[in-house]
Amino acid sequence: MSISFIEKLKQKWNEGKFVCVGLDPSKETSADALFPFNKSIIDSTHDLVLAYKPNSAFYEAFGAQGWNALKETVSYIHEAYTDIPVILDAKRGDIGSTNEGYIKTIFEDMSFDALTVHPYMGQESLQPFLNQTDKGIIVLVRTSNPGAGEFQDLTVDGRPLYEIVAENVALKWNKNGNCAVVVGATYPQDLKKVREIVGDMPILVPGIGAQGGDLEGILANGLDSNKQGLIISSSRAIIYADDPRKATEELDQQIRSLING
Amino acid sequence: MSISFIEKLKQKWNEGKFVCVGLDPSKETSADALFPFNKSIIDSTHDLVLAYKPNSAFYEAFGAQGWNALKETVSYIHEAYTDIPVILDAKRGDIGSTNEGYIKTIFEDMSFDALTVHPYMGQESLQPFLNQTDKGIIVLVRTSNPGAGEFQDLTVDGRPLYEIVAENVALKWNKNGNCAVVVGATYPQDLKKVREIVGDMPILVPGIGAQGGDLEGILANGLDSNKQGLIISSSRAIIYADDPRKATEELDQQIRSLING
Repeated sequence: MSISFIEKLKQKWNEGKFVCVGLDPSKETSADALFPFNKSIIDSTHDLVLAYKPNSAFYEAFGAQGWNALKETVSYIHEAYTDIPVILDAKRGDIGSTNEGYIKTIFEDMSFDALTVHPYMGQESLQPFLNQTDKGIIVLVRTSNPGAGEFQDLTVDGRPLYEIVAENVALKWNKNGNCAVVVGATYPQDLKKVREIVGDMPILVPGIGAQGGDLEGILANGLDSNKQGLIISSSRAIIYADDPRKATEELDQQIRSLING
Repeated sequence: MSISFIEKLKQKWNEGKFVCVGLDPSKETSADALFPFNKSIIDSTHDLVLAYKPNSAFYEAFGAQGWNALKETVSYIHEAYTDIPVILDAKRGDIGSTNEGYIKTIFEDMSFDALTVHPYMGQESLQPFLNQTDKGIIVLVRTSNPGAGEFQDLTVDGRPLYEIVAENVALKWNKNGNCAVVVGATYPQDLKKVREIVGDMPILVPGIGAQGGDLEGILANGLDSNKQGLIISSSRAIIYADDPRKATEELDQQIRSLING
């Protein structure tokens, strides 16, 4: 039996690991370069990370060959480093029957451990994803981009929309205990509110590094009741560092010293 | 110079065509079967349709080979029937820099005429799509699924969220005149409100046929000031009909008689 996404995360948190490396190869100019680039990053960082998170857009950019490189990447991690969960950041979300197609390729064929999804169409549409009990379904709540507030900050019953989304995920969507939420590292104050709403649910925090997220604020506001629960994701600042291992080590060390005071 | 998505639509509306065929092969069991299946539908319906709309999930289900079948399908339509616009229903939406990857494959490599997108991350994130002046950027406003209202119906300033989304698209996002919106055929009353908000902007209406949308209500509530402006999409009810051409003709005829009274 395979280990669930949540169980894999807990193992790594128990080892004090919080860093998720975003495998987002944006500077490679051919599909052939994608997997070797990723393999080099993975081999040099695997003992430091909580998770890996390729964003599908960087692979789809190369069409069918990019798709093969994505599959090769997740297969390699699962074979070489079996205990590391791999999140596909694809931000999917369609009507229920259509989502079955995404399940087939992302979970059944490529064996990703988790997937990011858009909340706009509601729980009923996402139920096929939520039914994948061993997989992590990571719902966009408060995204990291500067213009995230256009809809996410609109006031509903005296609260911003993103809080309502977080609340519905926590109270209604999480019957299988397989949900997580996304809160951008660029909004540490909002992370505090979301943590209050979702309890000990995992929170994926992208936007550390190139997007300028605030690590101290994230740890002060985002840890769960076990001082765990965060997936802190950095992409460009690690994978395009002169020394990706050193950049990962530095982020890991910063997190450890902030947590242990 | 290539003709823009909006111009292609207008040509077809001037011919009295409103039917968009959703190329969503959900019953095929191998990637090799996808293109021949689509080609047969396309060859038998091309003179009746306003547009074709493959949903990427049905192709991604077959991994890289499915991706090739998707590319083969759009290439075939563009070569054989140059004046028919092809919409990729992929419901994408990421941070701005990441969306460039989707633009590269969907618009540059595969030459789709239009793409559906999720609004949740806001205009700033979608600006790279909106900058594609010749392409159609079709924003989810009121989706066709039964549970669409979970967030879309939440009240913001006395109005449902989906109306705010429609208003922002119409007033702020459409500087290049290349936006359109999605309103499910299953919500004809909401279509009326959205049409008032977006003026003569094209509205993609999925959910006719298998999802049980109300054609009479759609035409009564959704036509623009020129008695045009609707992209009426049917997938399963046409492509898995005993005779897809006959099913397309019947829908085309129903629309024509409802419009011409």
